[in-house]
Amino acid sequence: MSHRIAILGASGYTGAELVRLIATHPEMEIVALTADRKAGQSMAEVFPFLRHLDLPRLCKIEDVDFSAVDLCFCALPHATTQQVISALPRDLKIVDLSADFRLRDVAEYEKWYGQPHTAPELQKEAVYGLTEFYRDEIRGARLVAGTGCNAATGQFALRPLIAAGVIDLDDILIDLKAGVSGAGRSLKENLLHAELSGGTHSYSAGGKHRHLGEFDQEFSRIAGRPVLVQFTPHLLPMNRGILASIYVKGDAKEVHATLAAAYAEEPFLEVLPFGALPSTRDIAGSNYCHIGVVGDRLPGRVLVVAVLDNLTKGSSGQAIQNANLMLGIEETVGLRLAPLFP
Amino acid sequence: MSHRIAILGASGYTGAELVRLIATHPEMEIVALTADRKAGQSMAEVFPFLRHLDLPRLCKIEDVDFSAVDLCFCALPHATTQQVISALPRDLKIVDLSADFRLRDVAEYEKWYGQPHTAPELQKEAVYGLTEFYRDEIRGARLVAGTGCNAATGQFALRPLIAAGVIDLDDILIDLKAGVSGAGRSLKENLLHAELSGGTHSYSAGGKHRHLGEFDQEFSRIAGRPVLVQFTPHLLPMNRGILASIYVKGDAKEVHATLAAAYAEEPFLEVLPFGALPSTRDIAGSNYCHIGVVGDRLPGRVLVVAVLDNLTKGSSGQAIQNANLMLGIEETVGLRLAPLFP
Amino acid sequence: MSHRIAILGASGYTGAELVRLIATHPEMEIVALTADRKAGQSMAEVFPFLRHLDLPRLCKIEDVDFSAVDLCFCALPHATTQQVISALPRDLKIVDLSADFRLRDVAEYEKWYGQPHTAPELQKEAVYGLTEFYRDEIRGARLVAGTGCNAATGQFALRPLIAAGVIDLDDILIDLKAGVSGAGRSLKENLLHAELSGGTHSYSAGGKHRHLGEFDQEFSRIAGRPVLVQFTPHLLPMNRGILASIYVKGDAKEVHATLAAAYAEEPFLEVLPFGALPSTRDIAGSNYCHIGVVGDRLPGRVLVVAVLDNLTKGSSGQAIQNANLMLGIEETVGLRLAPLFP
Amino acid sequence: MSHRIAILGASGYTGAELVRLIATHPEMEIVALTADRKAGQSMAEVFPFLRHLDLPRLCKIEDVDFSAVDLCFCALPHATTQQVISALPRDLKIVDLSADFRLRDVAEYEKWYGQPHTAPELQKEAVYGLTEFYRDEIRGARLVAGTGCNAATGQFALRPLIAAGVIDLDDILIDLKAGVSGAGRSLKENLLHAELSGGTHSYSAGGKHRHLGEFDQEFSRIAGRPVLVQFTPHLLPMNRGILASIYVKGDAKEVHATLAAAYAEEPFLEVLPFGALPSTRDIAGSNYCHIGVVGDRLPGRVLVVAVLDNLTKGSSGQAIQNANLMLGIEETVGLRLAPLFP
Repeated sequence: MSHRIAILGASGYTGAELVRLIATHPEMEIVALTADRKAGQSMAEVFPFLRHLDLPRLCKIEDVDFSAVDLCFCALPHATTQQVISALPRDLKIVDLSADFRLRDVAEYEKWYGQPHTAPELQKEAVYGLTEFYRDEIRGARLVAGTGCNAATGQFALRPLIAAGVIDLDDILIDLKAGVSGAGRSLKENLLHAELSGGTHSYSAGGKHRHLGEFDQEFSRIAGRPVLVQFTPHLLPMNRGILASIYVKGDAKEVHATLAAAYAEEPFLEVLPFGALPSTRDIAGSNYCHIGVVGDRLPGRVLVVAVLDNLTKGSSGQAIQNANLMLGIEETVGLRLAPLFP
Repeated sequence: MSHRIAILGASGYTGAELVRLIATHPEMEIVALTADRKAGQSMAEVFPFLRHLDLPRLCKIEDVDFSAVDLCFCALPHATTQQVISALPRDLKIVDLSADFRLRDVAEYEKWYGQPHTAPELQKEAVYGLTEFYRDEIRGARLVAGTGCNAATGQFALRPLIAAGVIDLDDILIDLKAGVSGAGRSLKENLLHAELSGGTHSYSAGGKHRHLGEFDQEFSRIAGRPVLVQFTPHLLPMNRGILASIYVKGDAKEVHATLAAAYAEEPFLEVLPFGALPSTRDIAGSNYCHIGVVGDRLPGRVLVVAVLDNLTKGSSGQAIQNANLMLGIEETVGLRLAPLFP
Repeated sequence: MSHRIAILGASGYTGAELVRLIATHPEMEIVALTADRKAGQSMAEVFPFLRHLDLPRLCKIEDVDFSAVDLCFCALPHATTQQVISALPRDLKIVDLSADFRLRDVAEYEKWYGQPHTAPELQKEAVYGLTEFYRDEIRGARLVAGTGCNAATGQFALRPLIAAGVIDLDDILIDLKAGVSGAGRSLKENLLHAELSGGTHSYSAGGKHRHLGEFDQEFSRIAGRPVLVQFTPHLLPMNRGILASIYVKGDAKEVHATLAAAYAEEPFLEVLPFGALPSTRDIAGSNYCHIGVVGDRLPGRVLVVAVLDNLTKGSSGQAIQNANLMLGIEETVGLRLAPLFP
Repeated sequence: MSHRIAILGASGYTGAELVRLIATHPEMEIVALTADRKAGQSMAEVFPFLRHLDLPRLCKIEDVDFSAVDLCFCALPHATTQQVISALPRDLKIVDLSADFRLRDVAEYEKWYGQPHTAPELQKEAVYGLTEFYRDEIRGARLVAGTGCNAATGQFALRPLIAAGVIDLDDILIDLKAGVSGAGRSLKENLLHAELSGGTHSYSAGGKHRHLGEFDQEFSRIAGRPVLVQFTPHLLPMNRGILASIYVKGDAKEVHATLAAAYAEEPFLEVLPFGALPSTRDIAGSNYCHIGVVGDRLPGRVLVVAVLDNLTKGSSGQAIQNANLMLGIEETVGLRLAPLFP
């Protein structure tokens, strides 16, 4: 049986990634695609790589017949998202990929995103979409808030360690390297090939990156007390992939054993043998996350490295994984695609 | 029902690409993987991007039980291939990805590859593997010879035009731009990132590239008289993809109409609207080939541009398409994966 | 003695390249830099790679004291340029890098650029800036029109061959591969790293690229009769460099000998040994142009390949070479920088 | 007056970079270039980007007349270097770019490089070549040991801070991002374009990277007590450049002020305004090092980011800076080239 899917915001990278994945998903069928400024165009015009697919033409949100939709992916900018979702039918299943419903406390939303939350009642309904840790809630949820891609990467490495109490909670440092597709299709000088390729720089350094809101919320919740991490993202000349180098204090073997045990049964989370470290090249285009652990010459220092594809496991793949749960489909359906290498 | 598959030469890029594609193929199961120098290793060690798969360990060819194999992909270097296939059971279905059985005339093989063919009797049996043009022969074949990746790209653009007699057969020029994975995993200075990225150069120019042997054979066969093309490949700083800019003389609209008609029913060959030209970015990681046609300000000049992924439609995807036919599986099974963009 | 230099349009890539080169030019001193929308900013803010230099702050054109300027480089968009230069003092030496004064016949300008030329009297004064072929005129000129970067590449390969009558004038084909900096700092989706890297496509194909106006003008002038070439540019995932694969009909050895003789004394034009072909990697960041010639298996077909850096020899380096002549400085001063490799 | 220069090991990247820089150095002249396996070839054959230069042909070391050499750059692999330099005239000025003479204590050399030092008497003579901190010793030295490129980057950021006592010496963490040219021209699978481009991974993690020997030696020497840092390098898909993200504990403003004061008069070290962070794109191909400092939301945490070009300021540019001092040339001569951007 095929579930009827709508994608709002299909002209961005996460929207296109949803279409790419659903193209070979045996139990989902795309019935509506929206893109306000490109309404009327075909997906083949906006994304020629999808031209072999038989897809509905792009339309405006108001032209979608939501009564014929089983689940809606919302891949719109934050702030806009709140308004759009507020106007959708209240019984429509929604997986949101924006930042609008990730933070439980709307005061935190205002702090990190610089404007008041306009749909606090919807926030109460929302379930945080880190599938592996919120499966049961997601299964029963109507509105699931997809996580930040950087936030997902850091949490996969750290949640079991914080929960097990095997690391120092006051000295966690995340040095993250991110591919450029995470910045979306926005037209900025520093995203041009001529300016981005062949070099690297850090951005939002010093505790200013918005995904810190998610780290603070989730890690403090697990620990039962405030946990504030240090976090520096860097932009790399690569299109897909995040590599998080996470420096913690604890016993390296215990850290490894904790992660290996936590993820032993997880279909998409692979913990490498102790001492092996992952590469973003090995997960590109897939829903897999690889995690490695190594000790240091300095006793008590541990490096945990996690990699995932920001567009797949970090957003659209995660979104489909959540949608599978919400629709009663086996969780991994449509997501077993192997990474693309080289 | 699952067909049992062996892959000889699984430690190279085309071998890995076969594994990647078969990973989500519902009717094939990998039962043997060989790599002489890496025998004993797991695929996860050789290609960590495949670590989520449950695969047989790499072994030597002599350790494969071919009686338990339904079809064998052979992804070995040329010359070696002849020897290996000569020693395999004579009733084993084989799809070869090397250059060893592409040229019907073993004298041509010797001319282009610089050494005598040592298995001329096998050559007689071999069917040229350009699926869309040899479907019937492939369906009944025991040994299919996969085409060169450049040779496939040029043929998709030119075969219908030569067959229909709509272009000047004495003035065909192929200026081809190829990604670096076509050179394989060989260790050469000019394939290093430091030397290849950020620049381009031509190679094997002046009529020396070996895929000319295939062009000569096939185009002359179609035309019923010698057709010799001019062909210059260029190496580009990209990993996957071939773009062939093909300059012919004829009527642009007629050229377009001929290609559109020829491929109207083909699942993997997409002819763009007249005047639109394709990009390699739109087929990366997929089995699709996009073809565009544009006229010129100079009357009678036509540019045909074809793009495909050298590792997929140009070799391993084509190989699986052929294997599907040989095994009685629907031709497109396992090959409908959408390209990866961005 | 130091000549006082102004650069109008210093916030684009050709403007920045002028600054980079003048930084080590012993006989030029920058006294004014303009950028209308960024007036008031320092160059270090706009181009941090220039922060070690002691440069005047960006200002508006109307704030420049041209009486204290010996030569002015104009690196503004076409159309704007005509207006700006019309308002400058009539005795000011100007090297223009735009397309506005390249075409002698203002009707041709209107044809290729889609709007009437508004300063036809200035056009009469302008000298076409391909240094090696217009040295004497440039030395005495007040206004020099820098060539298109693609146009320069093609002309270096073809001018001596047309002049010597050693190739068929009715069958010249230029398949050109261009790096992305040639498109400037403009914000377009297809120039984003995520969309450009890892792939290639052709653009302005079919006789639509504006640099054809220069080819037509110059080649016809040399030949004394109309010469119209076929020209297809392709955009490559590299920042600097143009490689032009030029297909002509003639005798390969004679073609090579003609080029070698023509450029024997040229400081920046290097003709490689017969059969050797150049790479864009070998001229990046420099004022050098490398040219190679190879024959073909098809008698009478010849491939000439020319490479240069579009920002240096193709625009800003050429501009300084011209300025040197106009100011009575030895032509190569400041331009002997070796390419950057890797 | 021109000093006569020999370069031993001219077929690697640091050798070629020396030639590139000396090409426009007004007081140095290359009289000998060696490359054992490529003896007899011209530099144009080995590095076509240098073909415009008039250079001596590559020869073997034993064929160099060292009596006609004023200073010799040695760009050979470690271990080999000791043997070669031991056999050179004892009064020849030498700037070594290998790791062989960087560690004062030959026991440390054996620990990090896995073999005994065979020229301990030469080690006693050697001066550590971090120009800005060893100027006086270098001026009078016969043998100068160029630093590791990663080691230089880290030291520029940290030496003034350790000397001034403004950071916690027991909690220094260096997360470093390195371009691929640092790995040299060695033929390894993971340096191929197909495997390196588009992704990132860490290497030599956990306290195993050999440049730690230099950090330990220098930082402990400054502090007067053992200082051991944590250090993780990552390989990035870029050719040139190192970005070191250095996490320290102290007062951010004090850290910035200390660096700004220390480097106020340095010609090649630029400290950015407080809060601004550097990019490797802004120093590529140059001898400049940019350093930025930012505080964190967590009080007492500071991020210092330093960038330089591993081939220039990190090795060959540094080597020429040292040679200038040893030859009595003004220190910056030949090294003021602006970076190449884009």
